[in-house]
Amino acid sequence: MELDALFTDSCARDWVTTDPDSTAPVRFAVVGLGWFTKGRSLPALEASDRCEPTVLVSSTAEKAEQVAAATDGAIGISYDAFHDGVARDKYDAVYICTPNALHLDYASTAAAFEKAVLCEKPMERDSDRARTLVETCDAASVDLMIAYRMHTEPAVRRARELIESGYIGDPMEVRADMSQRLLDRVNSDPDQWRLDEELAGGGALFDIGIYPLNTARFLLDADPIAATGQTASTHAAFADVDETVSFMLEFPDSVFASCYASHNARQSSGITVTGTEGQVRVEPAFFQEQSRKLHLSRGDSQSSITLAMVDQMREEFDYFADRVRGDAHLSPNGEHGLVDMVTMEAIYKAAAEKTWIEIQ
Amino acid sequence: MELDALFTDSCARDWVTTDPDSTAPVRFAVVGLGWFTKGRSLPALEASDRCEPTVLVSSTAEKAEQVAAATDGAIGISYDAFHDGVARDKYDAVYICTPNALHLDYASTAAAFEKAVLCEKPMERDSDRARTLVETCDAASVDLMIAYRMHTEPAVRRARELIESGYIGDPMEVRADMSQRLLDRVNSDPDQWRLDEELAGGGALFDIGIYPLNTARFLLDADPIAATGQTASTHAAFADVDETVSFMLEFPDSVFASCYASHNARQSSGITVTGTEGQVRVEPAFFQEQSRKLHLSRGDSQSSITLAMVDQMREEFDYFADRVRGDAHLSPNGEHGLVDMVTMEAIYKAAAEKTWIEIQ
Repeated sequence: MELDALFTDSCARDWVTTDPDSTAPVRFAVVGLGWFTKGRSLPALEASDRCEPTVLVSSTAEKAEQVAAATDGAIGISYDAFHDGVARDKYDAVYICTPNALHLDYASTAAAFEKAVLCEKPMERDSDRARTLVETCDAASVDLMIAYRMHTEPAVRRARELIESGYIGDPMEVRADMSQRLLDRVNSDPDQWRLDEELAGGGALFDIGIYPLNTARFLLDADPIAATGQTASTHAAFADVDETVSFMLEFPDSVFASCYASHNARQSSGITVTGTEGQVRVEPAFFQEQSRKLHLSRGDSQSSITLAMVDQMREEFDYFADRVRGDAHLSPNGEHGLVDMVTMEAIYKAAAEKTWIEIQ
Repeated sequence: MELDALFTDSCARDWVTTDPDSTAPVRFAVVGLGWFTKGRSLPALEASDRCEPTVLVSSTAEKAEQVAAATDGAIGISYDAFHDGVARDKYDAVYICTPNALHLDYASTAAAFEKAVLCEKPMERDSDRARTLVETCDAASVDLMIAYRMHTEPAVRRARELIESGYIGDPMEVRADMSQRLLDRVNSDPDQWRLDEELAGGGALFDIGIYPLNTARFLLDADPIAATGQTASTHAAFADVDETVSFMLEFPDSVFASCYASHNARQSSGITVTGTEGQVRVEPAFFQEQSRKLHLSRGDSQSSITLAMVDQMREEFDYFADRVRGDAHLSPNGEHGLVDMVTMEAIYKAAAEKTWIEIQ
């Protein structure tokens, strides 16, 4: 990337491959109507020119219909009805935002109906089920994308381009963190599925630690080869899953990443990549309601660039629609997501055994 | 600490216990006249009202006399002459800035002459010799301070007071880094002692990783209970010692610190402590030629405070002189430094064995 582009058109959608005006919008079945869907995903789908939320799916038809009543052009159906194929001619793709342990079931139904799948992260509650999810979509030849919104976040894309262009020299180190006060500030329900190991598969690591992990991979364009970490919980609500995780990843060529995630710390999020010649940082990075800042340094120069705040979910949905309507490579795909699942399991195993685990 | 003090008198010497006007300056024998001594320590001693460099000690009398000729009121003698007690009535304290593996020898001579000792970090090349150093000074009842200049760096002291006062709630995590291009930017000599395992004891960890490590301890007012890490080297000059180290520390109450140090990365230095309620960061933190910035956040508020640049070596020398002339507790003392030695050895062991090592 040319540096001058960074200062004039920093939020450009450099990933567009199909003309939105000459391709039909992608119609979505939206599965799982929790606070994230209602607060983030549905508004983005409604605002998009390339996407339409047409079928809303929840535990009961009543709940789904209630949300659909406030969503232009959408109908509401139950999970069971979805599996039965109700309204399957009304959607082209399925967005899955249920508890993690249910992703496979809905993806399997979507694949059986030959619908493209956009699946929230983490892919599933464990890597075995995630692998089955990938294989199921592969066997049905349907597109599968994992909803890593950092891949279409402009600040992160610009950081990645800078690193790729050699701005920081050889990458040497990544530091990244994401923390929030889940119970006090986001969702005080002690019965929420994120605290249930059966439904979630993991705690802070699976829910937010995956941002530092995946964004480190995306910025380095590399996958970890070994991991260690430690987990901790203080609140009774986090008896079954980690409230806090601190982990270290080894990438090829002795590049290390140190990451932290907590559901019990002041909101903070950032990622820094230090190289032999320079440094790139995105901070704040991972929460949606903040303007992104890109902090650069090389030689004698330091700069901070504030990027316009984009609707990250809309960027992600529109990218997905672009790929569904075109032939260009779709990424982050299922194989990409699987690496995170395997890595997160390695981190838990390393924490339990106080060791480093190699990642195959 | 009151917040308003931070905004009016942020560089106050809150540690002063004796009146500089009514106590005699402390006269120093300065042992080891490398670039750090000549560029940093001697100018600070010369500028100070509380200290006087009176005896300069180097490998040969000629070299020492050459430096002494440019130092008002100082004479130059050889290492051998120092051990023989030459000019021992001309100094009250000994500042040791030799290769690490020689610290014990000079501290032992200083203790035998009943001189106070200010010893550069790391204390020695290994924890056994460091322990002997502590015991030798204890047996002679001489003051021993380890030259951790962050303990008297105003930005770090203000950060510590904020944390102690509860500004960030319960501390949860520390992230810290220190990196530079040693060979390209600081000292290109491939024969420098910092690259010699026998003389240095370790590489990036011993030389600069000790800043993140020790400052994390100082800010948390706690010592690590377990550690892991990995080391790496790319240049041939770093065949015997680590060029880069990435390590993780566990402190009591499940507080984790992730630290990075490299002699082959863009100059960068900072330390961030995130708590349940807020965050405190000093960045830049560890190099001397930069104004410190203190970055605070809590609630809806974020602020960055630029502190006037102090001469960190002068602050450190003056603090030491204050304690030598008075009765107040002196810290960081030898026992404090010993914890770093043991921790750094644990990190190396953990790196070799790909495990976590408990610290006794």
